[in-house]
Amino acid sequence: MMQSAFDTLVAYQRQTETLGSISGLLSWDMETKMAQGSAAKRGEQLAVLSGLIHDRNAASQLRDLISAARENPQDVTTLRHIALIEREADKASGVPKDLVTEFAHARIRSNQAWGEARKNDAPDIFIPELKNIVSLTRKFASALREPSDKTLYDVCLRDYEPDTDSASIDVMFEKLRPRLVDLRAAVMAAPDAPRLSGHFDIAVQERLVIDLAERFGYDFNRGRIDVAIHPFCEGGGSDVRVTTRYDEKDPLNSIYSIIHEVGHASYEQNISKTHELTVFGHGCSMGIHESQSRICENQLGRSREFTSWLYGRMRDAFGDIGVASEDAFFRAVNGLQNGYIRTEADEVQYNLHVLLRYDLEKALIGGDLAVEDLEAAWNDRFEADFGVKVDKPSNGFLQDIHWCEALIGYFPTYSLGNVYAGCLYSALCYDVPSVMEQVAQGDLSSATEWLRENIHQYGASVPSVDLITKACGQAPSEAPLLDYLDNKFRALID
Amino acid sequence: MMQSAFDTLVAYQRQTETLGSISGLLSWDMETKMAQGSAAKRGEQLAVLSGLIHDRNAASQLRDLISAARENPQDVTTLRHIALIEREADKASGVPKDLVTEFAHARIRSNQAWGEARKNDAPDIFIPELKNIVSLTRKFASALREPSDKTLYDVCLRDYEPDTDSASIDVMFEKLRPRLVDLRAAVMAAPDAPRLSGHFDIAVQERLVIDLAERFGYDFNRGRIDVAIHPFCEGGGSDVRVTTRYDEKDPLNSIYSIIHEVGHASYEQNISKTHELTVFGHGCSMGIHESQSRICENQLGRSREFTSWLYGRMRDAFGDIGVASEDAFFRAVNGLQNGYIRTEADEVQYNLHVLLRYDLEKALIGGDLAVEDLEAAWNDRFEADFGVKVDKPSNGFLQDIHWCEALIGYFPTYSLGNVYAGCLYSALCYDVPSVMEQVAQGDLSSATEWLRENIHQYGASVPSVDLITKACGQAPSEAPLLDYLDNKFRALID
Repeated sequence: MMQSAFDTLVAYQRQTETLGSISGLLSWDMETKMAQGSAAKRGEQLAVLSGLIHDRNAASQLRDLISAARENPQDVTTLRHIALIEREADKASGVPKDLVTEFAHARIRSNQAWGEARKNDAPDIFIPELKNIVSLTRKFASALREPSDKTLYDVCLRDYEPDTDSASIDVMFEKLRPRLVDLRAAVMAAPDAPRLSGHFDIAVQERLVIDLAERFGYDFNRGRIDVAIHPFCEGGGSDVRVTTRYDEKDPLNSIYSIIHEVGHASYEQNISKTHELTVFGHGCSMGIHESQSRICENQLGRSREFTSWLYGRMRDAFGDIGVASEDAFFRAVNGLQNGYIRTEADEVQYNLHVLLRYDLEKALIGGDLAVEDLEAAWNDRFEADFGVKVDKPSNGFLQDIHWCEALIGYFPTYSLGNVYAGCLYSALCYDVPSVMEQVAQGDLSSATEWLRENIHQYGASVPSVDLITKACGQAPSEAPLLDYLDNKFRALID
Repeated sequence: MMQSAFDTLVAYQRQTETLGSISGLLSWDMETKMAQGSAAKRGEQLAVLSGLIHDRNAASQLRDLISAARENPQDVTTLRHIALIEREADKASGVPKDLVTEFAHARIRSNQAWGEARKNDAPDIFIPELKNIVSLTRKFASALREPSDKTLYDVCLRDYEPDTDSASIDVMFEKLRPRLVDLRAAVMAAPDAPRLSGHFDIAVQERLVIDLAERFGYDFNRGRIDVAIHPFCEGGGSDVRVTTRYDEKDPLNSIYSIIHEVGHASYEQNISKTHELTVFGHGCSMGIHESQSRICENQLGRSREFTSWLYGRMRDAFGDIGVASEDAFFRAVNGLQNGYIRTEADEVQYNLHVLLRYDLEKALIGGDLAVEDLEAAWNDRFEADFGVKVDKPSNGFLQDIHWCEALIGYFPTYSLGNVYAGCLYSALCYDVPSVMEQVAQGDLSSATEWLRENIHQYGASVPSVDLITKACGQAPSEAPLLDYLDNKFRALID
């Protein structure tokens, strides 16, 4: 039988996807297993792979295959499949090669400058490099701008959150901020939450982590757990690996890291097998991906129901954990504290950290904020939202790696994930009324099955907003997340 | 400055070598870390890489680069460098693509048939598949035959032991067999060697394994140790990984596995940095590679001097180990036992196992032995050399995986490694008279430094026989190995 033009296109892309999956595995190994002295060689291996992937995406052969595949009438899913491949082709061929090289070198320089600046709280080291990054990002975005892009920032956003634009994200985010600022102030005025204390043996934590991973739907037959300084999830389909980290004084670190990463991992593991090694064989956007990790970590994992079960499990595992009741444990897991650092923030404050960055980076790319004025703008906004003055740049605008790496357009997907998780959690509770009773028994199977059915299986075959709309019966909005946070945290301080 | 034609060739080859190194890492991961359910995807990843490597080696562009590099006058090392690249080009383009595909499928089928046949002691399942493998190997060898090849078997040998031929190996091996058969008979007539007994905690073994790896020159900054069912060493230059296995009842298993693999690994780690990711950046032949693992494991690791030190170290680590003196421990480490299985054999009998296979596979490829007559020929030879009748095919000609995988030409390199190790050990003791006094203190540094200087650093830049000749001051021969074995084992039974 003759292969159709579409099949030929998919077969071509399959080899590119396979090279991408190999690159992912090499990165996993670099973060978890590789010895220090192998770093230069690994850099060379990764560069060869990314060069091959770039060349395949930029090849005129790919353009011909795309045109041929479009010649026959196609259903909407096939057209989307072709469009996603074309997006890769456009990205690879849309920017002059010398600009790509310049950008790669600029990122290495700015990463070094950022590290120095952060270590010494000396922003001046970083400012010129960041100016260069912003300027190059604007050049890149200009080169890749499509007629449908209203702003340059929309082009940046598309790398992480395709099929939506900043105008519609703005509408949601603008409603988030005032209610979050209010809620934060109310919770911070209440007495401090209790804290766990004791020694938590790593071997015992490891067994608990495996148990939790399985409960949240992780399939160990297609992956594994290792340790990493910054936990992450890597891979897709039949090989998806997660990492966590252990702290003998703080078991909540390993517990909520693994639940978060397993949220990402079971998404990837449950994508329909037919999509593996195609452009549909990934999460459909960073926001949707983050919604899967966040609903597991927060709406399910930090719920009163789950923490009640977990409290018993932890007492069995560790004996006395320093808090004397399910209620105290629930409060310990959900306590708010003043802090400058995004990655250490709780459910309420986290989004305030992100919204600040979103507004600032949009202004940088839009030309409404000069890099020289970034620190002052950050500090003003931080004080307005958090009621605290930033004490030093490393606790302020120098804290994140994203900007020095030119990951501009990435931050909003964190909060978008939380907003989507809010929508999905509301729909889950509506569709499966008994779900939280089961969660109170440590049984997550109904919850994970609902996510598999409504989100996971589709991979990238359905655009993000359509996916949420279909799963929830209505378009995404900030309201479910805000209502959920209000209910949970105002009850906590009653 | 303009790049020379040779530099351009080396840069082209560097990308091919890098893809090979990636493939190696994926294989390491498959054997040590990967979950079962990821096997099909890994197969696809490896197939994509080997396809890319094949295409690069078969490309007409490579032929042009080779011709251009040859145009200028070159020194002998540069000419060898070009010749080694050309050998890859010849292998990739010398065989019709449909024969390559047929061979790949045949190997998969014969591997399955061999597994079944071995499990059920039913050789008839395997015979037709092995006939096919032998026939295809002959076709391959005919296609790749060069004017200098005297026999088809020489072509097979070249994949594993280039720069030599079976005629010169024959000369050495024919002298090995009678003296080994005599020595075996003498040792087997003596009383049984003592055996270790006790429980050997795995965590304690792990610490000992790390200590031994370091003593034998392994650099942990450019590699790591993991567990594998069949221990192996993988990688080159700045990333070389080893594996071992643990048995709570038999610490000699992990100890001599790690010393063997570290012998391979430190060879790869110590190749001159300038050779990394070039055709010189590997061991120069399987025989030379095996000589490095064997001299570490046997001449050094099973010496009276080293076992005396190791005995104290083991008593410190494990307490009572079931043998009461250094002498008893030395005998335990070097005890001979009747056995059918090559991989479990001692220093004396191992070569008899290999020589049997070498003679039989040479006869198969030469057309002097029919596959139908292989089992009988094996059993006759086994009884002649070992004085024991083979009880079942799985203890006889079905025991090794090599033939079903078409690894024909591989076996002799095991014994060649032992012969080379014999030559090198003799030269080492001559050059560094105090070396074994140091080994008796657990200090291997003079020995490993001598190997680094005389073998390791060169990688594949010097042909194997020249390398041994240069290191030893004379051409390789079987005499030093035989003298070493006679001295050691006849003293043991006195």
